[in-house]
Amino acid sequence: MLFRLLSLVLLLVAGPALAAPVRVASPDNVLSVEVTTDGDGRASYAVARFGKPVIAPSKLGFLLVDAPKLDRNMAVAELGRRSVDETWQQPWGEWREIRNRFNELRVGVTETGGLKRHFDVVFRVYDDGVGFRYEFPQQPQLTTVKVGEELTEFVLAQPGEAWWNTAFEWDREEYLYNRTPIEQVGLAQTPMTVRYADGLHLAIHEAALVDYSGMNLARVEGRRFKAALTQSVGDAKATRTTPFTTPWRTLQIADSAGGLYQSHLILNLNEPNKLGDVSWFKPGKFVGIWWDMHLDNKTWNSGPKHGATTAEAMRYIDFAAAHHIQGVLVEGWNKGWDGEWFGHGSDFSFTEAYPDFDIEKVTGYARSKGVRLVGHNETGANAARYESQMEAAFALYEKLGIEQVKTGYVSDAAQAQVIGADGKPHLAWHESQDMVRHYQRVIEAAARHHIAIDTHEPVKDTGLRRTYPNWVAREGSRGQEYNAWGSPGNPPEHETNLLFTRMLEGPMDFTPGVFGMKTRSPDGVPTTWAKQLALYVVLYSPIQMAADRIENYEANPKPFKFIEDVPTDWSDTRVVNGEVGDYATVVRKDRRSDDWYLGSITDEFGRVLTVRLGFLDPGRRYRAEIYRDGPAADWKTAPSDMVIEQREVSSADTLTLRLAAGGGQAIRFTPIPGGKPQREADHRH
Amino acid sequence: MLFRLLSLVLLLVAGPALAAPVRVASPDNVLSVEVTTDGDGRASYAVARFGKPVIAPSKLGFLLVDAPKLDRNMAVAELGRRSVDETWQQPWGEWREIRNRFNELRVGVTETGGLKRHFDVVFRVYDDGVGFRYEFPQQPQLTTVKVGEELTEFVLAQPGEAWWNTAFEWDREEYLYNRTPIEQVGLAQTPMTVRYADGLHLAIHEAALVDYSGMNLARVEGRRFKAALTQSVGDAKATRTTPFTTPWRTLQIADSAGGLYQSHLILNLNEPNKLGDVSWFKPGKFVGIWWDMHLDNKTWNSGPKHGATTAEAMRYIDFAAAHHIQGVLVEGWNKGWDGEWFGHGSDFSFTEAYPDFDIEKVTGYARSKGVRLVGHNETGANAARYESQMEAAFALYEKLGIEQVKTGYVSDAAQAQVIGADGKPHLAWHESQDMVRHYQRVIEAAARHHIAIDTHEPVKDTGLRRTYPNWVAREGSRGQEYNAWGSPGNPPEHETNLLFTRMLEGPMDFTPGVFGMKTRSPDGVPTTWAKQLALYVVLYSPIQMAADRIENYEANPKPFKFIEDVPTDWSDTRVVNGEVGDYATVVRKDRRSDDWYLGSITDEFGRVLTVRLGFLDPGRRYRAEIYRDGPAADWKTAPSDMVIEQREVSSADTLTLRLAAGGGQAIRFTPIPGGKPQREADHRH
Repeated sequence: MLFRLLSLVLLLVAGPALAAPVRVASPDNVLSVEVTTDGDGRASYAVARFGKPVIAPSKLGFLLVDAPKLDRNMAVAELGRRSVDETWQQPWGEWREIRNRFNELRVGVTETGGLKRHFDVVFRVYDDGVGFRYEFPQQPQLTTVKVGEELTEFVLAQPGEAWWNTAFEWDREEYLYNRTPIEQVGLAQTPMTVRYADGLHLAIHEAALVDYSGMNLARVEGRRFKAALTQSVGDAKATRTTPFTTPWRTLQIADSAGGLYQSHLILNLNEPNKLGDVSWFKPGKFVGIWWDMHLDNKTWNSGPKHGATTAEAMRYIDFAAAHHIQGVLVEGWNKGWDGEWFGHGSDFSFTEAYPDFDIEKVTGYARSKGVRLVGHNETGANAARYESQMEAAFALYEKLGIEQVKTGYVSDAAQAQVIGADGKPHLAWHESQDMVRHYQRVIEAAARHHIAIDTHEPVKDTGLRRTYPNWVAREGSRGQEYNAWGSPGNPPEHETNLLFTRMLEGPMDFTPGVFGMKTRSPDGVPTTWAKQLALYVVLYSPIQMAADRIENYEANPKPFKFIEDVPTDWSDTRVVNGEVGDYATVVRKDRRSDDWYLGSITDEFGRVLTVRLGFLDPGRRYRAEIYRDGPAADWKTAPSDMVIEQREVSSADTLTLRLAAGGGQAIRFTPIPGGKPQREADHRH
Repeated sequence: MLFRLLSLVLLLVAGPALAAPVRVASPDNVLSVEVTTDGDGRASYAVARFGKPVIAPSKLGFLLVDAPKLDRNMAVAELGRRSVDETWQQPWGEWREIRNRFNELRVGVTETGGLKRHFDVVFRVYDDGVGFRYEFPQQPQLTTVKVGEELTEFVLAQPGEAWWNTAFEWDREEYLYNRTPIEQVGLAQTPMTVRYADGLHLAIHEAALVDYSGMNLARVEGRRFKAALTQSVGDAKATRTTPFTTPWRTLQIADSAGGLYQSHLILNLNEPNKLGDVSWFKPGKFVGIWWDMHLDNKTWNSGPKHGATTAEAMRYIDFAAAHHIQGVLVEGWNKGWDGEWFGHGSDFSFTEAYPDFDIEKVTGYARSKGVRLVGHNETGANAARYESQMEAAFALYEKLGIEQVKTGYVSDAAQAQVIGADGKPHLAWHESQDMVRHYQRVIEAAARHHIAIDTHEPVKDTGLRRTYPNWVAREGSRGQEYNAWGSPGNPPEHETNLLFTRMLEGPMDFTPGVFGMKTRSPDGVPTTWAKQLALYVVLYSPIQMAADRIENYEANPKPFKFIEDVPTDWSDTRVVNGEVGDYATVVRKDRRSDDWYLGSITDEFGRVLTVRLGFLDPGRRYRAEIYRDGPAADWKTAPSDMVIEQREVSSADTLTLRLAAGGGQAIRFTPIPGGKPQREADHRH
């Protein structure tokens, strides 16, 4: 009975007055944030766009494991403001230059009674989004902060639809996307993307997840969500010692789905590059001994079907060298695959190859051909074992010229095994604070050896590639391999979901480019060939796999040419059109030439899209090499029906893209020297 | 990428075959349960009613904090069956006799590889519900079980509506009910009540919550819910040593809302009475120094407005003695109310009275008047301090004749303070395993002194009154006091929600009977007077407060007579009609006479309900004393408009009840000796 009474007593005794809100607007006064306290002294924030509520008043605060919560009976005070407008360069990425322009408000939140504990909340308000984080100063009354629950709320101010992955078991990111009314979201991973009834788009995520646990979103009721942090080892969701800051909680806000993707909020909220010159990382493409395993033609483990043999690797190296592919991934090369490795991994060696894989010979051969071997470290989620070997492994790889390593943490049968903060082995969720620390230790160790990391079964991407540019890609969603197995694969809408959800995080190693559409899955690879090509432009990664068996490329040199040509490093990127889960057209400009590339994809419905070419340099003529769905193309009945054609275009032109059901279109635009028409294809790559 | 691959590998390597389902039906073949495993070796259960799915296949299993999860790669085997049909007696309650009739199926769930760990799942299938629990036998490979998550799912097979309280902060039960489509439930407390589109009613709850943490329901997506256990002290949700059993997960299933209330599933799944003869607990009514505090006329703490004075207590005792009221509650009698007690409680003494309250004199006076003092122990959620004093306190109360104690755990500003399993002080949620243990220690200590406990801010009720019949009532939802404070109170639909949600747990100390409708809340007490009377029949508790100031009773003797008359112990109970959140009519038979009582309530809408009196003894005539809404009655404009009238009825009659908006009706049916009409009211009480 007395619960509610408390607030009355507080009002009478402690008397936190209803504070006047503290307000900050974005540079062009598009977005505004208000911070205030309610009658119980609870701090909250709200976000509006052109004065219309986007986030209704939403709570800030913490439950602590070993101390009274930081919730009621707080006073809010403005501590400072700051405006920043700067431009920085990505060493590699979707854009060469990133503008970072925001107004910052720092508010202090202090207990009005008791221990007078306090924290700051820092808001950075951009025209296309808001980031805020908690900053705990050093204070004698709060040294170790053991977070029981982060009380941060996100109360969505308007009805609408949401695209979201469930966070059912905390530990898995590979689900198909749900598309539901906001009021039907359950427990969701971030980013969660929302379209309000009035058309406004919103994505909730986080930036700079360092030494803290990953945030999920629990819908409490109605459109009220709260942060649901992943449990870490021990009794807290996260444990830190003051002073410290939490990750940024982010809200990307735009009129269109494309606007969300164009936002640089996540990157801007991360710390600048800590690694200095990272020119040793070279974006590029790779083929690999990989798809054959998923088709069950070959195995990771040893035996008659072992995929990673010296001969097979050299065959792939030959192919790569002949086709302007920079790398060859070899999975199953190392000892440890013969036991129950998944969720276990205690047999894995990261330095010892199987006898039928001569790593010295293979890497030497690769070097002689100008190709690099892409290393592979499946840990079976035994992070502790990996850490014990990774220094030696990275030193070996550096010596052998292995500049990129794909790591893996398969553990669906158990949590990851990790060394906790207490120095002892523990089980931990992939997005626990303990594993967040592990992933970062790997990145830092790899950087010391000039090795770039592509993490599979990763912690979600929160833009740390800005700070650690050797963290070049991750998985973190359902990739192409789901189309290989003996169960339903990704539906045709999957990639149109990915662009506006998972891809808001950062690069994904999706592994596109499969022409062998018949697999063990009932629907095979449910796209047309043209869509497979378009994915190289739509789904960004600085390292892109040409995922198919090389036999399928050798048999189809004309469509494969686009994969040979398409770069993986860009100076500019624009989403020309798109709706979440329906379709999207992306254009990107090659960082090393004046070429532009276009990728357009659709879900299970055919579409006719109009694209104005205003992104091309005005007054210049371009040759467009077009890879489009043929007249009979359909992902179910005729995936390979493709027309490859050339035409001349300029920035004044408008193209009409006809995408088949489950289809797509890929175009390379190459400036014609002197603006003159040119007949022959340009094979500069 | 490799997550899904696991299942394929498992199929190839470990090869758990798709097991044939194990099936059990209820005694009259109304409900049936099937247990099986899927292709990944995940155990699941499903429930059907007359063959139609009620619960679609739903997972069983556990995540463990310090060991691989018990999830995939399990084999299910039938271990035994049993049928029970027995009848037992409640020492007090809504029904004298309870029939316990079920078919039981025990299945063993064992890992097919690895450690071969195993647990049993025991299903008890009634015609009106299903209970199941996990039983962990002793086994060398699993001694201490630290539960990270209980994976138990409840996949609701049909669309429909749900009535639910949010479990936002784990620690609070006092919310208004949400009524939403199933797909819009967020994080819900139990019981959650559901009405499927076809009219079937379902309530999900638990029984026998002992030495484990309370279960909430997290909606994962769609209509799929999973158990969300409350975090306990330390790194686990619950920690037990094998052998042990979990609480029962319960599904009450009925054609109507009333059918849910009629179910004895929760009680039947609890262990029999462990206390033996409990005739020392005497059900009854009480008035108290209480409502005046909520109105801010008096205070709990000392000072000029102190409520708990010797003189005031004696005035209440005089009133109780004159009006057949058995008890007088006095809150604020003991030292400790003058500090910041809420969520703190470190000043409370449970044996020392304030100087202006002479406890020896008051209890002596009460005894001399045949009235009992009802003790009050507000702990401010400092359970540890309470435990250090409770033995001495209960000994004192026993000596003074204080046979009933209302406890309180107000802690909205922090968690409860408790001595954990490690013997050290910790903060803990009210529904953590640690607090579950605390509440039980209090009950057991009180029982040794023949004291009955009415817990406020309790752990939810899971039927433990069967095992410990001195745990006579609890709060655990929004009570009457919400209508007293300066903020919106309970809406008129609140009690019609309670009957089919909170009251499925067991007795609630709601504190009805307020005639002073004007309070500090804008809507005051939002019912008619007739509804206040009806609540004594509708909302069951063996101890019922007449909550108003005695001045209001003295000024209104005619309506107060129903409160004087109405018993608090019943031999039979029937829900005559009702829809969740709309209206309900309940009839109960006095355990100590042949009188029947009827209570009928409605929400904000007026209703005309028809009640056949077939529950009365056939061939007997009864005098009906009717307390009904008057012609102008309306909770907003004329709450006190009431008609009190008498008529003769028999079991062949049908009454038409006219309930005003926010109204109700209360009736006492008294057999007329010899079946002859009788003019005068019968004042036997």
